[in-house]
Amino acid sequence: MTEFRIINKEADGVARRGRISTPHGLIETPCFMPVGTKATVKGMTPKQLAEETASQIVLANTYHLFLRPGHELIKKLGGVHKFMGWDGPLLTDSGGFQVFSLSSLRRIEEGGVTFRSPLDGSRHQLSPESSIEIQEALGADIIMAFDECTPHPATYSEARDSLELTARWAQRSKASRKRDDNLLFGIIQGSTYPELRASSLEKTVAVGFDGYALGGLSVGEGQAAMYDVVEEFGPKLPELKPRYLMGVGTPEDLLVSVAAGLDMFDCVMPTRNARNGMYFTHQGPLTIKQARYREDSEPVDDVCDCYTCRNFSRAYLRHLFVSKEILSSVLATIHNLSFYNRLMADIRKALDKGRFQQFKHDFLAAYKA
Amino acid sequence: MTEFRIINKEADGVARRGRISTPHGLIETPCFMPVGTKATVKGMTPKQLAEETASQIVLANTYHLFLRPGHELIKKLGGVHKFMGWDGPLLTDSGGFQVFSLSSLRRIEEGGVTFRSPLDGSRHQLSPESSIEIQEALGADIIMAFDECTPHPATYSEARDSLELTARWAQRSKASRKRDDNLLFGIIQGSTYPELRASSLEKTVAVGFDGYALGGLSVGEGQAAMYDVVEEFGPKLPELKPRYLMGVGTPEDLLVSVAAGLDMFDCVMPTRNARNGMYFTHQGPLTIKQARYREDSEPVDDVCDCYTCRNFSRAYLRHLFVSKEILSSVLATIHNLSFYNRLMADIRKALDKGRFQQFKHDFLAAYKA
Repeated sequence: MTEFRIINKEADGVARRGRISTPHGLIETPCFMPVGTKATVKGMTPKQLAEETASQIVLANTYHLFLRPGHELIKKLGGVHKFMGWDGPLLTDSGGFQVFSLSSLRRIEEGGVTFRSPLDGSRHQLSPESSIEIQEALGADIIMAFDECTPHPATYSEARDSLELTARWAQRSKASRKRDDNLLFGIIQGSTYPELRASSLEKTVAVGFDGYALGGLSVGEGQAAMYDVVEEFGPKLPELKPRYLMGVGTPEDLLVSVAAGLDMFDCVMPTRNARNGMYFTHQGPLTIKQARYREDSEPVDDVCDCYTCRNFSRAYLRHLFVSKEILSSVLATIHNLSFYNRLMADIRKALDKGRFQQFKHDFLAAYKA
Repeated sequence: MTEFRIINKEADGVARRGRISTPHGLIETPCFMPVGTKATVKGMTPKQLAEETASQIVLANTYHLFLRPGHELIKKLGGVHKFMGWDGPLLTDSGGFQVFSLSSLRRIEEGGVTFRSPLDGSRHQLSPESSIEIQEALGADIIMAFDECTPHPATYSEARDSLELTARWAQRSKASRKRDDNLLFGIIQGSTYPELRASSLEKTVAVGFDGYALGGLSVGEGQAAMYDVVEEFGPKLPELKPRYLMGVGTPEDLLVSVAAGLDMFDCVMPTRNARNGMYFTHQGPLTIKQARYREDSEPVDDVCDCYTCRNFSRAYLRHLFVSKEILSSVLATIHNLSFYNRLMADIRKALDKGRFQQFKHDFLAAYKA
């Protein structure tokens, strides 16, 4: 059976050290989930992902895999784990966010969302029922209820209507579930209105899920507004279930959110920025194309023990980036995911030892965003 | 000390099984050398190159590294091995071929070749002296004399003038050598004229090198004309030195050339074709984007035990290719280099057991080019 266990809690806070059991293994929390949109974390072999970056779980995008190559094909080939050669835990999102941000001609109705594929213009519908059906065909360990990702900005009444639709879809998502070997998470919307977040939380918890996510953040509301929501509602999410902050964020965001009781995070930042030549370091981001690194024989981050930092100088990494070599993306991705996963491992260690606040303080003192 | 040893020879032919000692380790021959133009075999970490593809030696391009990031920088950073994180044997070409094929406004004179950088239009000269200086600064284990790669087609007198220039440059290349910890190879030109090939061979051997290469082939002369040169002159290259066929070729080319007594090969084909979605298999090339592979759960090559074939279906590899994912290039490169290196390992095994001709016959009977 799938389950969540809290191993340790802060004495004077709400941060927690936990463990999620899934059919494909354990996830130690707090954890970061690299984004593998099209059933591949860009540039990484599954072996590198596990061995070089210490990733525990991968996120894949329902919307993208539904459009290409199709969930039925993936099911026929044995599910997304087998398809992509990743046998660790895997989470799929509901497609809700992408259908709003990437499709044209979308029409939102009570039944679901009709949209056109950007690949070939073909017409499709995603609904709570079809999203769950697709996710169960893909066979992820953790699947998400189908939600409307409330855009930013949204008026109070738009945000209210949106969260109420999401709540009705949450019911239908749960009702349409056919497998019992996955965890189904509900998503809290409500934009930046505390009253609406509270309402969404209440309605979603009333449906009853295996975990709860804060959605609709990091969509343009700004860091302060996001922190307000995270700090107020992180601790209010059901304590005995995993808490997932969707699409976030920077190293600082992760520390602030762990401090607010969140357990799980995903973000394209470490992987996308890697391909743009941005390396995370304990002193802050480093833009490798800068001329100052041309002759620099040092590793990207002198406290990092990842494959990239053990073997390559900034000068070489800069050479690869300016030469537009594939290996630039590969080595930067190895480093950035190692950085994120080590940050989470350090957070877990600090929580185990009861010194999370000190770790957070020390990390942020060194890190210049 | 560097040296070449012949371990075994065909009883009824000229193919040989050998071993080259270099400062960075042994090379078992016959061998294939992946091309790492800009100090990276595109998409491969050095770890993958060694562990997943069983590559023994890498070729890097003097011309490219001279223009960017510059040999002086690489020397300052400890040499090209350290720069690119590859501590196995490494060969650099002379820059001769690239300066003719990639530069604009080149002017060939007795002293050397003047050309403009395609990167920034800056003016440079490559000469026998500067080519050797650059290669010794890079610090390769095997370096090449600076030659004029005779274009195809060339008239008899053009080819003659060209090989004579190359022979004078061979002298100067050897005279300008300063290190004694590398092998310096001479290059035989002469286009497709047997008399001129013989003349070039004689002049180059008279200079005296640690190994000899057949150059100026695979430049448009066609397979039959190339085989004529290889089959006539392969066996005539000095027997006790390594014999290197530059820029060749297909699996069939390698078998024919080994049969003609050649020991070393390099070609962009396995790596470049990989990025274009072409996989080598024991039955011939496979173009992964074809619709017939859409639902194909089989590995690319059912007799291959490489990382790609052990873990991924044709359907997944097709998905990666049509989705333009970086991992498509990575997995195809792992497979194609594994294929080439395994072919060479199988050739060596067959030579060890005295059944090379049988192996060659069986391989070509199954392989549809």
